[in-house]
Amino acid sequence: MTKEIYTAALIIIGDEILSGKTRDANTPWLAENLNESGVRLTEVRVIPDDKQKIVDTVNEMRTVHDYVFTTGGIGPTHDDITAESVAAAFGVELELSEEAYAALLSYYEDESDITESRKKMAIIPKGATLISNPVSGAPGIHIENVYVFAGVPRIMQAMFDAVRHELKGGKPVETRSVSADLAESLVADGLAEIQTRYKMIAIGSYPKYQNGRFGTTLVLRGIDDDALGAATQEVVDLVKLLGEKSPIVS
Amino acid sequence: MTKEIYTAALIIIGDEILSGKTRDANTPWLAENLNESGVRLTEVRVIPDDKQKIVDTVNEMRTVHDYVFTTGGIGPTHDDITAESVAAAFGVELELSEEAYAALLSYYEDESDITESRKKMAIIPKGATLISNPVSGAPGIHIENVYVFAGVPRIMQAMFDAVRHELKGGKPVETRSVSADLAESLVADGLAEIQTRYKMIAIGSYPKYQNGRFGTTLVLRGIDDDALGAATQEVVDLVKLLGEKSPIVS
Repeated sequence: MTKEIYTAALIIIGDEILSGKTRDANTPWLAENLNESGVRLTEVRVIPDDKQKIVDTVNEMRTVHDYVFTTGGIGPTHDDITAESVAAAFGVELELSEEAYAALLSYYEDESDITESRKKMAIIPKGATLISNPVSGAPGIHIENVYVFAGVPRIMQAMFDAVRHELKGGKPVETRSVSADLAESLVADGLAEIQTRYKMIAIGSYPKYQNGRFGTTLVLRGIDDDALGAATQEVVDLVKLLGEKSPIVS
Repeated sequence: MTKEIYTAALIIIGDEILSGKTRDANTPWLAENLNESGVRLTEVRVIPDDKQKIVDTVNEMRTVHDYVFTTGGIGPTHDDITAESVAAAFGVELELSEEAYAALLSYYEDESDITESRKKMAIIPKGATLISNPVSGAPGIHIENVYVFAGVPRIMQAMFDAVRHELKGGKPVETRSVSADLAESLVADGLAEIQTRYKMIAIGSYPKYQNGRFGTTLVLRGIDDDALGAATQEVVDLVKLLGEKSPIVS
């Protein structure tokens, strides 16, 4: 039997994000690319660089979701604790991966350059496979339904590209949006009425306030193209009825 | 007895963020402003616009953290379910707030303009107090240690400004950073050694890759100014020893 909905969680291991110093750039990219594979990102957690917290979060998320992705904390420094935390989450030992060591060797060319810190990048949970890193030395890790990626967006994206063919998914969610220069309280009643008739389409209303004017973006999402088209047309008709002369539909 | 560390969680109620359509802008601002009040943001969760999920997440976070902030899902439309979800989390009824209704009345001027949808913005959990919204109609809500804010950054920030004097916190975490054009695997050993001698300072290493060159930003955080200054100087000395002529310290 084929499932209809596949979900994923993203765990951002990120003291840098939590301190406010760095703004996460991986969520939107991963959300869109997962959706192309028919997988819905339905939860994101940003947690500190703390081993027990990583263990608990990975274990909670991997039982709830079809796929779990982590970003951050792979590499040679003392604060890179994702590999050991994921090993602990799965209750497996860490071991030196011959394949990862060979990759490091080809990267650094000389064995004497592989310091203990660099060697750490070749130590992965037993039973895990590697995800190649075309940019720098540290590979990603794949174990069961958990994918361990780097935090640097360019590297994270390359790692996702290397594994996206493995993902099994359903139908991608299609999105339409209708923007109008109307306060959202004006459209609320009509919108709720449309929502009651299109149960399979999720309709969201997002107010905006720009240049002293209120506006609203109405977003419709679903996997049924016909229903999505019909509901979008009804929303367009609604905002026109309420006085919006030229709604922007995309 | 005064606590030393106060923590907060941010719950982003956000189909829009999870779909990849909108990029969260509230986390960095809230993280920095909480830290000024001596409160550490130690967890962020992005969850769907789903009542049970909101209830469960609010209840889990409010027992673990000193403060919980939510963003999104307040307003007049059918998808604005935060107020009812927070009421359910606390096991209290929803009720019409006379104060919120009066605010709506002064905003819309004429009672006939207060449709059922708009009236919804004045219905809050019993026992909650209002957080004024200087930008649009829907107020925020404060109940026990949970603060319910709008998702629009400009409004969220105004709501935080209205309540920040209520927050009890410890000493703000100070941050120093040292940037060097060195691969992080080069600094790993020395950095780990410094970390072992400064237990109270959290030292993070963040690789970057720009214009074909590797670099590393080393970030030091702590509440003890003297230790922070001394550890930062040791990190500067380390990167200079490794060949960085002009590390950028900030």
